[in-house]
Amino acid sequence: MVQASISLKPALDAIGKAMDQRFDRLLPVPEDSRARLFNAMRHAVIGGGKRMRPLLVVAACDLFGIDRDKALRVALAIECVHCYSLIHDDLPCMDDDDMRRGKPTVHKAFDEATAVLAGDSLHALAFQILAEPATHDDALARAELVIELAEASGPVGMAGGQMMDLVAEHELYDLAGVTRLQQLKTGALIGFCLEAGAIMGRVPADQRTPLRGYARDLGLAFQIADDLLDVEGSAANTGKAVGKDEAAGKATFVSLLGVERARTQATMLIDQAIAHLQHFGQEADLLRAIARFAIERDR
Amino acid sequence: MVQASISLKPALDAIGKAMDQRFDRLLPVPEDSRARLFNAMRHAVIGGGKRMRPLLVVAACDLFGIDRDKALRVALAIECVHCYSLIHDDLPCMDDDDMRRGKPTVHKAFDEATAVLAGDSLHALAFQILAEPATHDDALARAELVIELAEASGPVGMAGGQMMDLVAEHELYDLAGVTRLQQLKTGALIGFCLEAGAIMGRVPADQRTPLRGYARDLGLAFQIADDLLDVEGSAANTGKAVGKDEAAGKATFVSLLGVERARTQATMLIDQAIAHLQHFGQEADLLRAIARFAIERDR
Repeated sequence: MVQASISLKPALDAIGKAMDQRFDRLLPVPEDSRARLFNAMRHAVIGGGKRMRPLLVVAACDLFGIDRDKALRVALAIECVHCYSLIHDDLPCMDDDDMRRGKPTVHKAFDEATAVLAGDSLHALAFQILAEPATHDDALARAELVIELAEASGPVGMAGGQMMDLVAEHELYDLAGVTRLQQLKTGALIGFCLEAGAIMGRVPADQRTPLRGYARDLGLAFQIADDLLDVEGSAANTGKAVGKDEAAGKATFVSLLGVERARTQATMLIDQAIAHLQHFGQEADLLRAIARFAIERDR
Repeated sequence: MVQASISLKPALDAIGKAMDQRFDRLLPVPEDSRARLFNAMRHAVIGGGKRMRPLLVVAACDLFGIDRDKALRVALAIECVHCYSLIHDDLPCMDDDDMRRGKPTVHKAFDEATAVLAGDSLHALAFQILAEPATHDDALARAELVIELAEASGPVGMAGGQMMDLVAEHELYDLAGVTRLQQLKTGALIGFCLEAGAIMGRVPADQRTPLRGYARDLGLAFQIADDLLDVEGSAANTGKAVGKDEAAGKATFVSLLGVERARTQATMLIDQAIAHLQHFGQEADLLRAIARFAIERDR
Protein backbone atom coordinates (compact mmCIF):
# COMPACT_ATOMS: atom_id res chain seq x y z
CA MET A 1 0.00 0.00 0.00
CA VAL A 2 1.36 3.41 -0.95
CA GLN A 3 1.28 5.79 2.02
CA ALA A 4 -0.07 9.20 1.20
CA SER A 5 1.56 12.12 2.90
CA ILE A 6 -0.25 14.96 1.23
CA SER A 7 -2.26 17.35 3.36
CA LEU A 8 -5.80 17.91 2.22
CA LYS A 9 -5.92 21.63 2.95
CA PRO A 10 -4.60 22.91 -0.42
CA ALA A 11 -6.87 20.50 -2.33
CA LEU A 12 -9.92 21.59 -0.31
CA ASP A 13 -9.09 25.26 -0.83
CA ALA A 14 -8.64 24.74 -4.57
CA ILE A 15 -11.88 22.83 -5.07
CA GLY A 16 -13.78 25.38 -2.96
CA LYS A 17 -12.47 28.20 -5.13
CA ALA A 18 -13.20 26.30 -8.36
CA MET A 19 -16.78 25.56 -7.27
CA ASP A 20 -17.44 29.16 -6.22
CA GLN A 21 -16.11 30.53 -9.52
CA ARG A 22 -18.11 28.09 -11.60
CA PHE A 23 -21.34 28.62 -9.70
CA ASP A 24 -20.86 32.37 -10.02
CA ARG A 25 -20.54 32.06 -13.81
CA LEU A 26 -23.37 29.51 -14.03
CA LEU A 27 -25.92 31.61 -12.16
CA PRO A 28 -26.03 35.19 -13.42
CA VAL A 29 -28.99 36.96 -11.79
CA PRO A 30 -31.65 37.80 -14.41
CA GLU A 31 -33.21 41.26 -14.48
CA ASP A 32 -36.78 40.17 -13.87
CA SER A 33 -38.72 38.73 -10.96
CA ARG A 34 -36.80 35.45 -11.19
CA ALA A 35 -33.90 37.38 -9.58
CA ARG A 36 -35.08 36.25 -6.14
CA LEU A 37 -34.83 32.60 -7.21
CA PHE A 38 -31.31 32.99 -8.57
CA ASN A 39 -30.17 34.90 -5.49
CA ALA A 40 -31.48 32.07 -3.31
CA MET A 41 -29.64 29.49 -5.42
CA ARG A 42 -26.44 31.53 -5.18
CA HIS A 43 -26.88 31.84 -1.40
CA ALA A 44 -27.01 28.04 -1.19
CA VAL A 45 -24.11 27.10 -3.46
CA ILE A 46 -21.52 29.88 -3.27
CA GLY A 47 -19.10 30.35 -0.38
CA GLY A 48 -19.36 27.52 2.05
CA GLY A 49 -19.34 23.82 2.69
CA LYS A 50 -16.44 21.41 2.78
CA ARG A 51 -16.91 20.53 -0.92
CA MET A 52 -16.12 16.94 0.02
CA ARG A 53 -18.23 15.45 -2.76
CA PRO A 54 -16.77 17.61 -5.54
CA LEU A 55 -13.28 16.75 -4.27
CA LEU A 56 -14.18 13.05 -4.31
CA VAL A 57 -15.26 13.33 -7.95
CA VAL A 58 -12.01 15.03 -8.88
CA ALA A 59 -10.01 12.44 -6.92
CA ALA A 60 -11.88 9.57 -8.60
CA CYS A 61 -11.26 11.15 -12.01
CA ASP A 62 -7.54 11.46 -11.16
CA LEU A 63 -7.37 7.66 -11.05
CA PHE A 64 -8.12 7.50 -14.74
CA GLY A 65 -6.43 10.66 -15.99
CA ILE A 66 -9.71 12.41 -16.82
CA ASP A 67 -9.44 15.98 -18.07
CA ARG A 68 -9.80 18.32 -15.07
CA ASP A 69 -12.42 20.50 -16.72
CA LYS A 70 -14.68 17.50 -17.37
CA ALA A 71 -14.23 16.32 -13.80
CA LEU A 72 -15.16 19.75 -12.46
CA ARG A 73 -18.39 19.78 -14.44
CA VAL A 74 -19.47 16.52 -12.84
CA ALA A 75 -18.32 17.87 -9.47
CA LEU A 76 -20.54 20.91 -10.03
CA ALA A 77 -23.51 18.66 -10.77
CA ILE A 78 -23.09 16.57 -7.63
CA GLU A 79 -22.72 19.73 -5.53
CA CYS A 80 -26.00 21.01 -7.04
CA VAL A 81 -27.73 17.83 -5.86
CA HIS A 82 -26.08 17.98 -2.43
CA CYS A 83 -27.06 21.63 -1.95
CA TYR A 84 -30.64 21.08 -3.17
CA SER A 85 -31.00 18.28 -0.63
CA LEU A 86 -29.67 20.51 2.16
CA ILE A 87 -32.12 23.30 1.27
CA HIS A 88 -35.08 20.91 1.36
CA ASP A 89 -33.85 19.02 4.46
CA ASP A 90 -33.53 22.32 6.34
CA LEU A 91 -37.18 23.31 5.67
CA PRO A 92 -39.46 23.74 8.71
CA CYS A 93 -41.49 20.64 7.69
CA MET A 94 -38.29 18.58 7.54
CA ASP A 95 -35.38 19.15 9.98
CA ASP A 96 -36.30 22.80 10.63
CA ASP A 97 -32.77 24.23 10.70
CA ASP A 98 -31.93 27.94 10.88
CA MET A 99 -28.21 27.73 10.23
CA ARG A 100 -26.19 26.00 7.52
CA ARG A 101 -22.55 26.47 6.59
CA GLY A 102 -22.43 29.34 9.10
CA LYS A 103 -25.17 31.28 7.30
CA PRO A 104 -28.96 31.47 7.64
CA THR A 105 -30.63 28.59 5.79
CA VAL A 106 -32.32 29.53 2.49
CA HIS A 107 -35.85 29.62 3.91
CA LYS A 108 -34.59 31.92 6.69
CA ALA A 109 -32.66 34.25 4.36
CA PHE A 110 -35.50 34.24 1.80
CA ASP A 111 -38.75 32.34 2.47
CA GLU A 112 -40.06 28.78 2.35
CA ALA A 113 -41.57 28.93 -1.13
CA THR A 114 -38.36 30.35 -2.58
CA ALA A 115 -36.40 27.64 -0.78
CA VAL A 116 -38.55 24.89 -2.31
CA LEU A 117 -38.07 26.38 -5.78
CA ALA A 118 -34.34 27.02 -5.31
CA GLY A 119 -33.90 23.36 -4.37
CA ASP A 120 -35.96 22.20 -7.33
CA SER A 121 -33.98 24.48 -9.64
CA LEU A 122 -30.61 23.18 -8.48
CA HIS A 123 -31.95 19.66 -8.87
CA ALA A 124 -32.85 20.26 -12.54
CA LEU A 125 -29.59 22.12 -13.14
CA ALA A 126 -27.57 19.14 -11.94
CA PHE A 127 -28.88 16.95 -14.74
CA GLN A 128 -28.45 19.68 -17.32
CA ILE A 129 -24.79 20.10 -16.33
CA LEU A 130 -24.20 16.34 -16.47
CA ALA A 131 -25.66 15.97 -19.95
CA GLU A 132 -24.17 19.11 -21.55
CA PRO A 133 -22.61 19.38 -24.07
CA ALA A 134 -24.01 16.26 -25.70
CA THR A 135 -21.67 14.99 -28.42
CA HIS A 136 -21.51 11.64 -30.17
CA ASP A 137 -18.28 10.75 -28.36
CA ASP A 138 -19.48 11.54 -24.89
CA ALA A 139 -23.21 10.89 -25.03
CA LEU A 140 -23.15 7.34 -23.67
CA ALA A 141 -21.07 8.30 -20.63
CA ARG A 142 -23.33 11.31 -20.06
CA ALA A 143 -26.48 9.20 -20.19
CA GLU A 144 -24.90 6.76 -17.72
CA LEU A 145 -23.99 9.62 -15.38
CA VAL A 146 -27.59 10.85 -15.49
CA ILE A 147 -28.96 7.39 -14.73
CA GLU A 148 -26.54 6.84 -11.83
CA LEU A 149 -27.12 10.27 -10.28
CA ALA A 150 -30.90 9.97 -10.58
CA GLU A 151 -30.81 6.57 -8.91
CA ALA A 152 -28.43 7.70 -6.15
CA SER A 153 -30.48 10.79 -5.34
CA GLY A 154 -34.00 9.44 -5.90
CA PRO A 155 -36.46 7.31 -3.93
CA VAL A 156 -34.26 4.19 -3.79
CA GLY A 157 -31.28 6.37 -2.75
CA MET A 158 -30.89 9.69 -0.95
CA ALA A 159 -34.57 10.68 -0.89
CA GLY A 160 -35.47 7.19 0.36
CA GLY A 161 -32.88 7.54 3.13
CA GLN A 162 -34.30 10.91 4.09
CA MET A 163 -37.75 9.30 4.30
CA MET A 164 -36.31 6.62 6.62
CA ASP A 165 -34.78 9.42 8.68
CA LEU A 166 -38.16 11.17 9.01
CA VAL A 167 -39.75 7.90 10.14
CA ALA A 168 -36.90 7.56 12.68
CA GLU A 169 -38.64 10.12 14.87
CA HIS A 170 -41.31 7.49 15.55
CA GLU A 171 -39.37 4.27 15.03
CA LEU A 172 -36.11 3.44 16.83
CA TYR A 173 -33.71 1.72 14.42
CA ASP A 174 -31.10 -0.81 15.50
CA LEU A 175 -27.53 -0.76 14.17
CA ALA A 176 -28.53 -2.54 10.95
CA GLY A 177 -31.35 -0.04 10.45
CA VAL A 178 -29.17 3.02 11.03
CA THR A 179 -26.51 1.58 8.72
CA ARG A 180 -29.08 1.02 5.97
CA LEU A 181 -30.57 4.50 6.48
CA GLN A 182 -27.17 6.18 6.22
CA GLN A 183 -26.07 4.07 3.27
CA LEU A 184 -29.05 5.55 1.43
CA LYS A 185 -29.15 9.07 2.88
CA THR A 186 -25.45 9.96 2.50
CA GLY A 187 -23.80 6.82 1.11
CA ALA A 188 -25.58 6.68 -2.23
CA LEU A 189 -24.40 10.12 -3.31
CA ILE A 190 -20.84 9.47 -2.12
CA GLY A 191 -21.02 6.24 -4.12
CA PHE A 192 -21.98 8.26 -7.18
CA CYS A 193 -18.85 10.44 -6.83
CA LEU A 194 -16.65 7.37 -7.27
CA GLU A 195 -18.91 5.77 -9.89
CA ALA A 196 -18.66 8.99 -11.91
CA GLY A 197 -14.90 8.59 -12.13
CA ALA A 198 -15.32 5.00 -13.25
CA ILE A 199 -17.91 5.93 -15.89
CA MET A 200 -15.77 8.71 -17.30
CA GLY A 201 -12.72 6.45 -17.15
CA ARG A 202 -14.73 3.81 -19.07
CA VAL A 203 -14.04 1.20 -16.42
CA PRO A 204 -16.34 -1.81 -17.03
CA ALA A 205 -19.01 -2.21 -14.34
CA ASP A 206 -17.55 -5.52 -13.13
CA GLN A 207 -14.19 -3.86 -12.39
CA ARG A 208 -15.61 -1.16 -10.13
CA THR A 209 -15.65 -3.29 -6.97
CA PRO A 210 -12.67 -1.60 -5.24
CA LEU A 211 -14.12 1.87 -5.84
CA ARG A 212 -17.53 0.79 -4.57
CA GLY A 213 -15.92 -0.74 -1.48
CA TYR A 214 -13.99 2.48 -0.83
CA ALA A 215 -17.15 4.56 -1.25
CA ARG A 216 -19.22 2.32 1.04
CA ASP A 217 -16.67 2.34 3.86
CA LEU A 218 -15.89 6.05 3.47
CA GLY A 219 -19.59 6.93 3.50
CA LEU A 220 -20.26 5.12 6.74
CA ALA A 221 -17.11 6.48 8.42
CA PHE A 222 -18.03 9.98 7.25
CA GLN A 223 -21.48 9.60 8.83
CA ILE A 224 -20.09 8.23 12.11
CA ALA A 225 -17.78 11.27 12.20
CA ASP A 226 -20.84 13.49 11.62
CA ASP A 227 -22.65 11.79 14.51
CA LEU A 228 -19.60 12.35 16.71
CA LEU A 229 -19.48 16.03 15.72
CA ASP A 230 -23.19 16.31 16.54
CA VAL A 231 -22.33 15.16 20.08
CA GLU A 232 -18.87 16.66 20.57
CA GLY A 233 -18.58 19.45 18.01
CA SER A 234 -19.56 23.09 18.27
CA ALA A 235 -21.93 25.11 16.12
CA ALA A 236 -19.05 27.56 15.56
CA ASN A 237 -16.97 24.88 13.81
CA THR A 238 -19.70 22.94 12.02
CA GLY A 239 -21.68 26.02 10.92
CA LYS A 240 -24.94 24.32 11.91
CA ALA A 241 -26.84 23.41 15.06
CA VAL A 242 -25.41 20.47 17.04
CA GLY A 243 -27.00 18.05 19.50
CA LYS A 244 -30.09 17.72 17.30
CA ASP A 245 -30.18 13.93 16.96
CA GLU A 246 -30.09 13.39 20.70
CA ALA A 247 -32.80 16.04 21.23
CA ALA A 248 -34.99 14.31 18.62
CA GLY A 249 -34.42 10.94 20.31
CA LYS A 250 -33.05 9.45 17.08
CA ALA A 251 -30.84 6.39 17.07
CA THR A 252 -27.37 7.20 15.69
CA PHE A 253 -24.09 5.31 15.48
CA VAL A 254 -23.01 7.15 18.63
CA SER A 255 -26.20 6.46 20.60
CA LEU A 256 -26.02 2.77 19.63
CA LEU A 257 -22.25 2.20 19.96
CA GLY A 258 -21.15 4.88 22.41
CA VAL A 259 -18.48 7.48 21.62
CA GLU A 260 -15.44 5.24 21.96
CA ARG A 261 -16.67 2.29 19.92
CA ALA A 262 -18.05 4.66 17.29
CA ARG A 263 -14.64 6.29 16.96
CA THR A 264 -12.90 2.89 16.71
CA GLN A 265 -15.41 1.74 14.12
CA ALA A 266 -14.85 4.87 12.01
CA THR A 267 -11.06 4.37 12.10
CA MET A 268 -11.46 0.73 11.12
CA LEU A 269 -13.72 1.66 8.21
CA ILE A 270 -11.21 4.23 6.96
CA ASP A 271 -8.36 1.68 7.09
CA GLN A 272 -10.61 -0.65 5.14
CA ALA A 273 -11.52 2.09 2.63
CA ILE A 274 -7.83 2.79 2.01
CA ALA A 275 -7.10 -0.95 1.69
CA HIS A 276 -9.56 -1.14 -1.21
CA LEU A 277 -7.19 1.16 -3.11
CA GLN A 278 -4.17 -1.13 -2.73
CA HIS A 279 -3.83 -1.84 -6.44
CA PHE A 280 -3.61 1.85 -7.25
CA GLY A 281 -0.38 3.87 -7.01
CA GLN A 282 0.08 7.52 -6.16
CA GLU A 283 -2.79 8.46 -8.48
CA ALA A 284 -5.00 7.37 -5.52
CA ASP A 285 -3.21 9.50 -2.91
CA LEU A 286 -5.92 12.15 -2.97
CA LEU A 287 -8.60 9.51 -2.26
CA ARG A 288 -6.47 8.22 0.64
CA ALA A 289 -6.06 11.72 2.05
CA ILE A 290 -9.81 12.36 1.77
CA ALA A 291 -10.49 9.15 3.67
CA ARG A 292 -8.27 10.23 6.56
CA PHE A 293 -9.74 13.73 6.54
CA ALA A 294 -13.27 12.29 6.74
CA ILE A 295 -12.73 11.24 10.36
CA GLU A 296 -10.18 13.85 11.46
CA ARG A 297 -12.15 16.96 10.52
CA ASP A 298 -13.72 19.25 13.12
CA ARG A 299 -16.54 20.49 10.84
CA MET B 1 -54.87 22.02 -44.32
CA VAL B 2 -56.15 18.57 -43.40
CA GLN B 3 -59.17 18.82 -41.10
CA ALA B 4 -59.11 16.41 -38.20
CA SER B 5 -62.36 14.79 -37.25
CA ILE B 6 -61.14 12.47 -34.54
CA SER B 7 -62.54 12.83 -31.07
CA LEU B 8 -59.98 13.05 -28.34
CA LYS B 9 -61.86 10.92 -25.81
CA PRO B 10 -60.47 7.50 -26.86
CA ALA B 11 -56.92 8.87 -27.06
CA LEU B 12 -57.19 10.47 -23.62
CA ASP B 13 -58.60 7.25 -22.14
CA ALA B 14 -55.83 5.19 -23.70
CA ILE B 15 -52.99 7.44 -22.54
CA GLY B 16 -54.52 7.61 -19.05
CA LYS B 17 -54.60 3.83 -18.84
CA ALA B 18 -51.07 3.49 -20.25
CA MET B 19 -49.68 5.99 -17.72
CA ASP B 20 -51.45 4.32 -14.79
CA GLN B 21 -50.17 0.87 -15.78
CA ARG B 22 -46.62 2.06 -16.26
CA PHE B 23 -46.50 4.05 -13.02
CA ASP B 24 -47.89 1.03 -11.18
CA ARG B 25 -45.08 -1.17 -12.54
CA LEU B 26 -42.45 1.53 -12.02
CA LEU B 27 -43.27 2.13 -8.35
CA PRO B 28 -43.57 -1.12 -6.41
CA VAL B 29 -43.86 -0.31 -2.68
CA PRO B 30 -40.74 -1.47 -0.80
CA GLU B 31 -41.11 -3.39 2.45
CA ASP B 32 -39.26 -0.94 4.65
CA SER B 33 -39.89 2.57 5.95
CA ARG B 34 -39.55 4.02 2.46
CA ALA B 35 -43.03 2.57 1.82
CA ARG B 36 -44.60 5.89 2.85
CA LEU B 37 -42.58 7.72 0.21
CA PHE B 38 -43.58 5.32 -2.56
CA ASN B 39 -47.24 5.43 -1.51
CA ALA B 40 -47.14 9.21 -1.70
CA MET B 41 -45.59 9.07 -5.16
CA ARG B 42 -48.25 6.60 -6.30
CA HIS B 43 -50.98 8.84 -4.86
CA ALA B 44 -49.68 11.70 -6.99
CA VAL B 45 -49.16 9.92 -10.31
CA ILE B 46 -51.74 7.13 -10.55
CA GLY B 47 -55.41 7.64 -11.38
CA GLY B 48 -56.06 11.21 -12.31
CA GLY B 49 -55.22 14.19 -14.41
CA LYS B 50 -55.95 14.85 -18.04
CA ARG B 51 -52.58 13.42 -19.13
CA MET B 52 -52.39 16.23 -21.68
CA ARG B 53 -48.60 16.37 -21.66
CA PRO B 54 -48.08 12.62 -22.15
CA LEU B 55 -50.60 12.72 -24.99
CA LEU B 56 -48.73 15.63 -26.55
CA VAL B 57 -45.49 13.62 -26.46
CA VAL B 58 -47.18 10.66 -28.12
CA ALA B 59 -48.80 12.93 -30.72
CA ALA B 60 -45.46 14.64 -31.47
CA CYS B 61 -43.79 11.23 -31.81
CA ASP B 62 -46.56 10.15 -34.22
CA LEU B 63 -45.34 12.84 -36.64
CA PHE B 64 -42.08 10.98 -37.07
CA GLY B 65 -43.22 7.39 -36.73
CA ILE B 66 -41.45 6.86 -33.39
CA ASP B 67 -41.95 3.49 -31.73
CA ARG B 68 -44.89 3.79 -29.30
CA ASP B 69 -43.02 2.23 -26.40
CA LYS B 70 -40.20 4.77 -26.69
CA ALA B 71 -42.72 7.59 -26.87
CA LEU B 72 -44.51 6.34 -23.75
CA ARG B 73 -41.26 6.30 -21.77
CA VAL B 74 -40.69 9.98 -22.55
CA ALA B 75 -44.35 10.64 -21.77
CA LEU B 76 -43.86 8.99 -18.39
CA ALA B 77 -40.86 11.21 -17.69
CA ILE B 78 -42.71 14.42 -18.51
CA GLU B 79 -45.65 13.34 -16.35
CA CYS B 80 -43.21 12.74 -13.46
CA VAL B 81 -42.00 16.32 -13.79
CA HIS B 82 -45.54 17.69 -14.12
CA CYS B 83 -46.71 15.77 -11.03
CA TYR B 84 -43.66 16.73 -8.97
CA SER B 85 -44.35 20.38 -9.78
CA LEU B 86 -48.01 20.02 -8.74
CA ILE B 87 -47.02 18.41 -5.41
CA HIS B 88 -44.62 21.24 -4.61
CA ASP B 89 -46.93 24.00 -5.92
CA ASP B 90 -49.74 22.70 -3.69
CA LEU B 91 -47.63 22.95 -0.50
CA PRO B 92 -48.85 25.32 2.23
CA CYS B 93 -45.85 27.62 1.65
CA MET B 94 -46.71 27.80 -2.07
CA ASP B 95 -50.32 27.82 -3.33
CA ASP B 96 -51.67 25.99 -0.26
CA ASP B 97 -54.16 23.72 -2.04
CA ASP B 98 -56.10 20.90 -0.38
CA MET B 99 -57.55 19.27 -3.49
CA ARG B 100 -55.94 18.12 -6.72
CA ARG B 101 -57.38 15.87 -9.42
CA GLY B 102 -60.40 15.34 -7.16
CA LYS B 103 -58.28 13.88 -4.35
CA PRO B 104 -56.55 15.36 -1.30
CA THR B 105 -53.19 16.87 -2.23
CA VAL B 106 -50.14 14.83 -1.19
CA HIS B 107 -49.33 16.93 1.88
CA LYS B 108 -52.97 16.52 3.01
CA ALA B 109 -53.12 12.76 2.39
CA PHE B 110 -49.63 12.28 3.91
CA ASP B 111 -47.68 15.21 5.38
CA GLU B 112 -45.58 18.13 4.18
CA ALA B 113 -42.19 16.47 4.57
CA THR B 114 -43.36 13.41 2.65
CA ALA B 115 -44.77 15.70 -0.05
CA VAL B 116 -41.44 17.50 -0.46
CA LEU B 117 -39.62 14.16 -0.77
CA ALA B 118 -42.23 12.63 -3.09
CA GLY B 119 -41.84 15.62 -5.42
CA ASP B 120 -38.05 15.39 -5.28
CA SER B 121 -38.21 11.66 -5.96
CA LEU B 122 -40.44 12.03 -9.02
CA HIS B 123 -38.11 14.76 -10.24
CA ALA B 124 -35.08 12.45 -10.08
CA LEU B 125 -37.06 9.57 -11.57
CA ALA B 126 -37.97 11.66 -14.61
CA PHE B 127 -34.33 12.00 -15.63
CA GLN B 128 -33.62 8.34 -14.93
CA ILE B 129 -36.49 7.31 -17.21
CA LEU B 130 -35.32 9.66 -19.97
CA ALA B 131 -31.77 8.35 -19.94
CA GLU B 132 -32.53 4.62 -19.57
CA PRO B 133 -31.59 2.32 -21.18
CA ALA B 134 -28.43 4.03 -22.43
CA THR B 135 -27.16 2.42 -25.62
CA HIS B 136 -24.68 3.66 -28.20
CA ASP B 137 -27.47 4.19 -30.75
CA ASP B 138 -29.74 6.20 -28.52
CA ALA B 139 -27.39 7.94 -26.14
CA LEU B 140 -27.13 11.24 -28.00
CA ALA B 141 -30.90 11.64 -28.24
CA ARG B 142 -31.25 10.70 -24.57
CA ALA B 143 -28.65 13.27 -23.49
CA GLU B 144 -30.47 15.90 -25.56
CA LEU B 145 -33.79 14.98 -23.94
CA VAL B 146 -32.21 15.36 -20.49
CA ILE B 147 -30.78 18.77 -21.37
CA GLU B 148 -34.07 20.02 -22.82
CA LEU B 149 -36.19 18.76 -19.93
CA ALA B 150 -33.81 20.18 -17.34
CA GLU B 151 -33.87 23.55 -19.04
CA ALA B 152 -37.66 23.54 -19.49
CA SER B 153 -38.31 22.61 -15.86
CA GLY B 154 -35.48 24.52 -14.16
CA PRO B 155 -34.86 28.13 -13.11
CA VAL B 156 -35.01 29.60 -16.62
CA GLY B 157 -38.20 27.60 -17.31
CA MET B 158 -41.00 26.20 -15.15
CA ALA B 159 -39.41 26.90 -11.75
CA GLY B 160 -38.60 30.45 -12.88
CA GLY B 161 -42.23 30.92 -13.95
CA GLN B 162 -43.42 29.65 -10.58
CA MET B 163 -41.11 32.19 -8.90
CA MET B 164 -42.66 34.95 -11.04
CA ASP B 165 -46.08 33.67 -9.99
CA LEU B 166 -45.14 33.90 -6.30
CA VAL B 167 -43.93 37.46 -6.79
CA ALA B 168 -47.26 38.19 -8.53
CA GLU B 169 -48.91 38.36 -5.13
CA HIS B 170 -47.01 41.60 -4.55
CA GLU B 171 -46.48 42.85 -8.08
CA LEU B 172 -49.30 43.32 -10.61
CA TYR B 173 -48.16 42.17 -14.06
CA ASP B 174 -49.45 43.66 -17.31
CA LEU B 175 -50.41 41.50 -20.29
CA ALA B 176 -46.78 41.16 -21.42
CA GLY B 177 -45.79 40.16 -17.89
CA VAL B 178 -48.53 37.54 -17.54
CA THR B 179 -47.70 36.17 -20.99
CA ARG B 180 -44.02 35.86 -20.07
CA LEU B 181 -44.89 34.26 -16.71
CA GLN B 182 -47.13 31.66 -18.32
CA GLN B 183 -44.72 30.95 -21.17
CA LEU B 184 -42.27 29.89 -18.47
CA LYS B 185 -44.62 28.33 -15.90
CA THR B 186 -46.65 26.11 -18.24
CA GLY B 187 -45.34 26.87 -21.75
CA ALA B 188 -41.79 25.60 -21.30
CA LEU B 189 -42.88 22.08 -20.36
CA ILE B 190 -45.48 21.95 -23.16
CA GLY B 191 -42.69 23.07 -25.48
CA PHE B 192 -40.59 20.15 -24.28
CA CYS B 193 -43.34 17.66 -25.23
CA LEU B 194 -43.07 18.74 -28.87
CA GLU B 195 -39.29 19.13 -28.77
CA ALA B 196 -39.07 15.54 -27.51
CA GLY B 197 -40.79 14.29 -30.65
CA ALA B 198 -38.40 16.30 -32.78
CA ILE B 199 -35.34 15.01 -30.91
CA MET B 200 -36.46 11.40 -31.18
CA GLY B 201 -37.39 11.95 -34.83
CA ARG B 202 -33.88 13.39 -35.38
CA VAL B 203 -35.31 16.59 -36.83
CA PRO B 204 -32.49 19.18 -37.08
CA ALA B 205 -32.92 22.09 -34.64
CA ASP B 206 -33.42 24.62 -37.47
CA GLN B 207 -36.41 22.66 -38.80
CA ARG B 208 -38.35 22.65 -35.54
CA THR B 209 -39.94 26.08 -36.02
CA PRO B 210 -43.49 24.84 -36.82
CA LEU B 211 -43.50 22.56 -33.76
CA ARG B 212 -42.22 25.36 -31.55
CA GLY B 213 -44.87 27.70 -32.92
CA TYR B 214 -47.58 25.11 -32.27
CA ALA B 215 -46.32 24.57 -28.72
CA ARG B 216 -46.11 28.29 -27.94
CA ASP B 217 -49.64 29.05 -29.17
CA LEU B 218 -51.11 25.92 -27.60
CA GLY B 219 -49.45 26.67 -24.26
CA LEU B 220 -50.89 30.17 -24.07
CA ALA B 221 -54.35 29.05 -25.21
CA PHE B 222 -54.26 26.24 -22.67
CA GLN B 223 -53.45 28.72 -19.90
CA ILE B 224 -56.18 31.16 -20.97
CA ALA B 225 -58.61 28.21 -20.84
CA ASP B 226 -57.32 27.44 -17.34
CA ASP B 227 -57.91 31.05 -16.28
CA LEU B 228 -61.45 30.87 -17.71
CA LEU B 229 -62.09 27.63 -15.80
CA ASP B 230 -60.81 29.30 -12.63
CA VAL B 231 -63.53 31.93 -13.10
CA GLU B 232 -66.34 29.90 -14.68
CA GLY B 233 -65.57 26.28 -13.83
CA SER B 234 -66.56 24.21 -10.84
CA ALA B 235 -64.40 22.36 -8.35
CA ALA B 236 -66.42 19.23 -9.19
CA ASN B 237 -65.24 19.32 -12.81
CA THR B 238 -61.70 20.60 -12.37
CA GLY B 239 -60.94 18.51 -9.29
CA LYS B 240 -59.29 21.49 -7.62
CA ALA B 241 -60.31 24.75 -5.94
CA VAL B 242 -61.50 27.49 -8.32
CA GLY B 243 -61.60 31.29 -7.99
CA LYS B 244 -58.17 31.31 -6.39
CA ASP B 245 -56.47 33.81 -8.70
CA GLU B 246 -59.13 36.44 -8.15
CA ALA B 247 -59.04 35.89 -4.39
CA ALA B 248 -55.25 36.32 -4.42
CA GLY B 249 -55.59 39.50 -6.47
CA LYS B 250 -53.36 38.12 -9.21
CA ALA B 251 -53.44 39.44 -12.75
CA THR B 252 -54.57 36.76 -15.22
CA PHE B 253 -55.50 36.72 -18.89
CA VAL B 254 -59.13 36.95 -17.81
CA SER B 255 -58.64 39.82 -15.34
CA LEU B 256 -56.65 41.75 -17.95
CA LEU B 257 -58.73 40.96 -21.06
CA GLY B 258 -62.17 40.17 -19.68
CA VAL B 259 -63.97 36.85 -20.30
CA GLU B 260 -65.05 37.52 -23.87
CA ARG B 261 -61.77 38.82 -25.22
CA ALA B 262 -59.90 36.06 -23.40
CA ARG B 263 -62.09 33.46 -25.08
CA THR B 264 -61.59 35.06 -28.51
CA GLN B 265 -57.86 35.23 -27.96
CA ALA B 266 -57.71 31.53 -27.00
CA THR B 267 -59.64 30.55 -30.13
CA MET B 268 -57.34 32.65 -32.28
CA LEU B 269 -54.27 31.08 -30.74
CA ILE B 270 -55.62 27.59 -31.37
CA ASP B 271 -56.33 28.40 -35.03
CA GLN B 272 -52.79 29.68 -35.24
CA ALA B 273 -51.39 26.58 -33.51
CA ILE B 274 -53.17 24.35 -36.02
CA ALA B 275 -51.96 26.52 -38.91
CA HIS B 276 -48.37 25.80 -37.89
CA LEU B 277 -49.07 22.15 -38.75
CA GLN B 278 -50.14 22.88 -42.34
CA HIS B 279 -47.26 21.01 -43.95
CA PHE B 280 -48.13 17.83 -42.07
CA GLY B 281 -50.78 15.37 -43.22
CA GLN B 282 -53.02 13.16 -41.12
CA GLU B 283 -50.06 12.15 -38.95
CA ALA B 284 -50.69 15.52 -37.23
CA ASP B 285 -54.41 14.93 -36.65
CA LEU B 286 -53.89 14.03 -33.00
CA LEU B 287 -52.00 17.31 -32.42
CA ARG B 288 -54.87 19.18 -34.08
CA ALA B 289 -57.44 17.43 -31.93
CA ILE B 290 -55.43 18.18 -28.77
CA ALA B 291 -55.33 21.85 -29.74
CA ARG B 292 -59.11 22.01 -30.06
CA PHE B 293 -59.59 20.09 -26.83
CA ALA B 294 -57.30 22.53 -24.98
CA ILE B 295 -59.94 25.27 -25.14
CA GLU B 296 -63.12 23.17 -25.22
CA ARG B 297 -62.47 21.14 -22.06
CA ASP B 298 -64.44 21.68 -18.85
CA ARG B 299 -61.65 20.48 -16.56
